[in-house]
Amino acid sequence: MPGLSQAEKAQKFLSLHRGPRILVLPNAWDVSSARIFEDAGFPAIATTSSGIANSLGFPDGQHISREQMLEVVERIANAVSIPVTADMEGGYGTTIDAMAETARGVIAAGAVGLNLEDSPEETSGKLFDIPLQKEKIAAIVEVGKKMGVPLVVNARTDVYLEKIGAPSERFAHAVERLNAFREAGAASLFAPVVEDAETIAALARAVRGPLNVLARAGTPPVRELEKLGVARVTVGGGPMRATMGLVSRIAGELRDQGTYNLMLENLMPSDRANSLMLKRRGKSN
Amino acid sequence: MPGLSQAEKAQKFLSLHRGPRILVLPNAWDVSSARIFEDAGFPAIATTSSGIANSLGFPDGQHISREQMLEVVERIANAVSIPVTADMEGGYGTTIDAMAETARGVIAAGAVGLNLEDSPEETSGKLFDIPLQKEKIAAIVEVGKKMGVPLVVNARTDVYLEKIGAPSERFAHAVERLNAFREAGAASLFAPVVEDAETIAALARAVRGPLNVLARAGTPPVRELEKLGVARVTVGGGPMRATMGLVSRIAGELRDQGTYNLMLENLMPSDRANSLMLKRRGKSN
Repeated sequence: MPGLSQAEKAQKFLSLHRGPRILVLPNAWDVSSARIFEDAGFPAIATTSSGIANSLGFPDGQHISREQMLEVVERIANAVSIPVTADMEGGYGTTIDAMAETARGVIAAGAVGLNLEDSPEETSGKLFDIPLQKEKIAAIVEVGKKMGVPLVVNARTDVYLEKIGAPSERFAHAVERLNAFREAGAASLFAPVVEDAETIAALARAVRGPLNVLARAGTPPVRELEKLGVARVTVGGGPMRATMGLVSRIAGELRDQGTYNLMLENLMPSDRANSLMLKRRGKSN
Repeated sequence: MPGLSQAEKAQKFLSLHRGPRILVLPNAWDVSSARIFEDAGFPAIATTSSGIANSLGFPDGQHISREQMLEVVERIANAVSIPVTADMEGGYGTTIDAMAETARGVIAAGAVGLNLEDSPEETSGKLFDIPLQKEKIAAIVEVGKKMGVPLVVNARTDVYLEKIGAPSERFAHAVERLNAFREAGAASLFAPVVEDAETIAALARAVRGPLNVLARAGTPPVRELEKLGVARVTVGGGPMRATMGLVSRIAGELRDQGTYNLMLENLMPSDRANSLMLKRRGKSN
């Protein structure tokens, strides 16, 4: 989609949430991974906040700044032609002004959507109140409208991730939150970490908007998710952490055996690696 | 080595080229890979210019600027306690002044050594004249002395890589160049891409300084390299391109099968990934 304006990319990206097929959205953490995913034919990509944080040397969970995150988002968005949505964690701040600033930054970086979490930190065990979170989402949507780039807000509730309340109440709590976020203007509704098919199907029925599921150990395959009514599947930091696992094993083999087998078995040839980049460099931006 | 000054790190790094054992130096391209290599116990790390270029969306071969390269080098050097040597390609420029500028940048970034190639570009098919290259190396060494950080210059000749001259003359040509570079102050001498044991052993004998060999397909294992007289072995962009190969296969599986097996099989658990970063964050810098 080299000819699309940023606004058109946002519309295109939104329409992918409403298509007959599930939207499979791989998560990139650097330009290399983004180019590989684009080259593989995915119609859009997301970023992974944990992957970007790890690649910069930070743990997951809102430890890096808005500016650090947006610098990588911009580099990725500039390097691909397809729509990019940015994982902006909790939005980098707690105020409405901070959210508007984040939304402006996302648009300036060239992205057309963002994730917004409703937990202050990954391990805080509490969530922002629904009214505040709705205001935050509405503020982001408003910035998108004003700037002419209808941002696709993927509103995430961490009811399951943070194990909020009694297990028996989590489903109702998550649905209440996601539907409130939808009312505030969220285009997509995200509830990690739910794996069992029954809960996923029930969530997809109960939320009044496209449901995003995170693929991890135990998650049904894409085609089953599609049948369960899921609109969008992402992989989060999974691919990045897979590369970290591989690097760790390559390091161990080099240290212990003094051999390079895992490196060589997995190697992308350098002409292929470079051509993935050269192709891009031949384009206008 | 958290307590070492930059000068002490440079001396420590130099001494690793003269130890009884071969120096195995893995090449990092981001903080994550650097932290993994440090955690695996390697006494020092190198950077990979091709890996850094690829992760930023550029092909290998001096397409990124000195500033872009040094930004990543600095991020890596700040994130580990062990000595870091930077792959600075051809030094970003052709003049002596440019080399001095590069040397100052390397020191400012916190690294204690650098690679310097003798080819203007990866695919140019020609090399800088020996006298100019000697002047460049001497200028870098001089900057290190003046700034009190004795830079470990790994002088690389691309006689083999660029297939310069007749095959029968390459050995003598490479030795001539490497010994000239040694004379100019290079601490380590690098001749990619030589794989056969006989040539490696002959090179190790013929050059008047520590020999660096690049591990790739066909290269003897580390213990054999050590017996052949090699002082230092690096892996270049291999580990990064291994991760690119893995990401490409993860993408293909996700697209074609809609499953996550390769991702899950290779996954580093998120608590392990984050602890690799947290450990670092707990340190003084």
